[in-house]
Amino acid sequence: MKKTDVLIIGGSAAGIVTAVTGKNHYPDKNFLVIRKEKEVLVPCGIPYIFGTLKNSDRNKIPDTILSNAGIDLKIGEVTFVDQENKVCKVDDGTEISFDKLVFATGSIPTVPKWLKGAELDNVFTVPKNKEYLDVLIEKLGDCKKIVTIGGGFIGVEVSDEINKMGKEVTIVEKLPQILGLVFDDYLASRAGELLESRGLTLRRGVGVKELTGNEKVTAVVLKNGEELEADAVVLSIGYHPNVSLAEKSGLEIDELGTIKVDEYLRTKNHDIFAVGDCAGKWDFLTRKLSGIRLASTACAEARAVGMNLYGLLTVRTFSGTIAIFSTAIGDTGFGTAGLTENHARKEGFHVVTGIFEGIDKHPGTLPGTHKQTVKLVVAKDSGVLLGGEVMGGQSTGEIVNLLGLAIQNRMTVNSLLITQIGTHPMLTAPPTAYPIIKAAEEAAKKMKRA
Amino acid sequence: MKKTDVLIIGGSAAGIVTAVTGKNHYPDKNFLVIRKEKEVLVPCGIPYIFGTLKNSDRNKIPDTILSNAGIDLKIGEVTFVDQENKVCKVDDGTEISFDKLVFATGSIPTVPKWLKGAELDNVFTVPKNKEYLDVLIEKLGDCKKIVTIGGGFIGVEVSDEINKMGKEVTIVEKLPQILGLVFDDYLASRAGELLESRGLTLRRGVGVKELTGNEKVTAVVLKNGEELEADAVVLSIGYHPNVSLAEKSGLEIDELGTIKVDEYLRTKNHDIFAVGDCAGKWDFLTRKLSGIRLASTACAEARAVGMNLYGLLTVRTFSGTIAIFSTAIGDTGFGTAGLTENHARKEGFHVVTGIFEGIDKHPGTLPGTHKQTVKLVVAKDSGVLLGGEVMGGQSTGEIVNLLGLAIQNRMTVNSLLITQIGTHPMLTAPPTAYPIIKAAEEAAKKMKRA
Repeated sequence: MKKTDVLIIGGSAAGIVTAVTGKNHYPDKNFLVIRKEKEVLVPCGIPYIFGTLKNSDRNKIPDTILSNAGIDLKIGEVTFVDQENKVCKVDDGTEISFDKLVFATGSIPTVPKWLKGAELDNVFTVPKNKEYLDVLIEKLGDCKKIVTIGGGFIGVEVSDEINKMGKEVTIVEKLPQILGLVFDDYLASRAGELLESRGLTLRRGVGVKELTGNEKVTAVVLKNGEELEADAVVLSIGYHPNVSLAEKSGLEIDELGTIKVDEYLRTKNHDIFAVGDCAGKWDFLTRKLSGIRLASTACAEARAVGMNLYGLLTVRTFSGTIAIFSTAIGDTGFGTAGLTENHARKEGFHVVTGIFEGIDKHPGTLPGTHKQTVKLVVAKDSGVLLGGEVMGGQSTGEIVNLLGLAIQNRMTVNSLLITQIGTHPMLTAPPTAYPIIKAAEEAAKKMKRA
Repeated sequence: MKKTDVLIIGGSAAGIVTAVTGKNHYPDKNFLVIRKEKEVLVPCGIPYIFGTLKNSDRNKIPDTILSNAGIDLKIGEVTFVDQENKVCKVDDGTEISFDKLVFATGSIPTVPKWLKGAELDNVFTVPKNKEYLDVLIEKLGDCKKIVTIGGGFIGVEVSDEINKMGKEVTIVEKLPQILGLVFDDYLASRAGELLESRGLTLRRGVGVKELTGNEKVTAVVLKNGEELEADAVVLSIGYHPNVSLAEKSGLEIDELGTIKVDEYLRTKNHDIFAVGDCAGKWDFLTRKLSGIRLASTACAEARAVGMNLYGLLTVRTFSGTIAIFSTAIGDTGFGTAGLTENHARKEGFHVVTGIFEGIDKHPGTLPGTHKQTVKLVVAKDSGVLLGGEVMGGQSTGEIVNLLGLAIQNRMTVNSLLITQIGTHPMLTAPPTAYPIIKAAEEAAKKMKRA
């Protein structure tokens, strides 16, 4: 029987970061990562293999990340975890005994059971699976009209990339706006306009009834009876946690279908951890279970687990998931951190908002200057920052991270108003009109009035 | 006699933001800005009028910022402040009585008294003065060889821009590195290499003895006796606070030559404030008087003053200046927040550092991917973040702001390690190798060892 100190099941972002961080903190322990896939893709890079990279080989995570850190790797599927004996059974018949075990089994694309025709040829999902995606790209080559079902981040990114391949792409989204769960109307509608200006067709506010065709899909039938011709369909309705192994092995599953963990990502069995998409999460602000699954959150969890494998070295001060997303449509970045206004109100927060539209260089006459819009969502009485949305240029991703950091530090509008920021003509908004601070001023005004 | 509630002397960033913020908080009060200049330039945009904008008209701050906010503007020079009667005398013979007075008189380029030949024709400084700069640009048109004396931010930015005009530019810096006060050797030497690759010549580690020529400058003589031919010389040795009016009017000046203020930017006379380059500052970390003068700091101060003009509405929690700088050389951004390692050690801090070199998109095969390097400086025992340096692409300015926010929130390496960040292929480093967090890991390792 093979023996290892720490066994990590799953080799995507969460698994890798757990292993590397763990080995870093406990260099005397043996670490073994076991995964099903021969090769692993950068998860968030997957949409970009279609039109930009043109090839999944350019989006691989090299195994040298593990080997350079002195971490062992095995390709195989764990079929059962014997908790009592601390042994994993692998599909090749081998057994691996462990001291600590980490589930990093990720998530898999959801194919709704109610969707008739989902089994037809040329109906695809977007799994984190290189072989599948290579086939998908190849098959898309022969297609002209593509319909994407679901206008969340993955649906939007993949559609925009398939559009770059020269295809006619239509996104069907049942909510009134694409990206409607993560942005309030103002930014979501702008994202929609931008996609349309790039040649995509959007069908918003209408659900899908079924997919039709003989063997191969030929049409998407909407709930209003309309039919959209389709040579291929991409389902991007969501992902659900991959917990079948955990369930089979007797681990507790929470009501969102994720592995039940405490704030240190430990299961009831303190030698067994779960991280990433398969692990339970709480929202930082609402304190409810959260269904938001991001590679960046997975990595933050993985670092905490890696450090705390053999004793709690690091207090997880910022417990709870802050949804920090960003994406790009062409050269326009969109990002969000924390709660949207809609979400906050739905949860019962009394909020005010502030919005400011500025520029990302200064003066705006500089070449390459991009508009930059920031919206802040703030608790009306305490002034605590609950969320923010950003639309801008190349720096959008890091501005969203700034907002995320402010939320994690429980900063208030008042503290934002006197925050020092650095500015530079070529790199940022002007010091006189830095959008986060101007939006905070707007919110502060409304707090006073309220 | 003209009467106003709030009189602000100076119409650059600090004056404008004080007025706009003040009017925002106290809409019933009259605000009047008085300034000498007919037109005002975006201060940090000034270097870019040479090669990129090609014209100072494209770098103006429009007066509509004031008029739209309901703030009055007068062009003129205040010659004396009568504190007892609360009256300002203006050079056109008028007098203005005020209730609250704000000095925002800025800074002026330093021309060292010991520098022989500084009075020659074609020896320039870089003041915030449109007329002067328009003449400078015109005169540079006839020049071939330009020597810049002083390799700080302004010297580097102006030189790189003049190089874009097709001139031969040499920067003379007496420190071993250009930008040597704000970056440790590692980044400073990279900035130097980059400038050289763009065709600039650097003379480092050698001072200037004198400028020579008849009427017009023809050469810069170095301390080692060497002569550099020069058709024009740009002095960018530093700026000193413009406090002659304050001094004349009996305000107290501190040992760095700035107007003495308390943590709310009030002078001993609580109806008189000072903000921006002319006002005294403390370093956030060393608690010493600070000589670092930035538009962004000025604006943070101005917001505090604007809010607190008639009673202390907002506690200045983050008192003290954090030096948050950024600049760009071509498409490479350089930035720094807080203390460099050298500076921290000189001040007596026991520090460890962490450095990580990654990429600003992921996977690195994406077009336009730029290297991204982060260095963190951390207090060895407490783990409190003292400073950070960044070299990267377009997002460098906002990453430096992230570091600035972390410093202001007194974050530690431990809290950075479990910080959640958002990542996106097109906009940020990968979640598995986000440079701030990887650099924090390096620093954490060294803390353990120490």
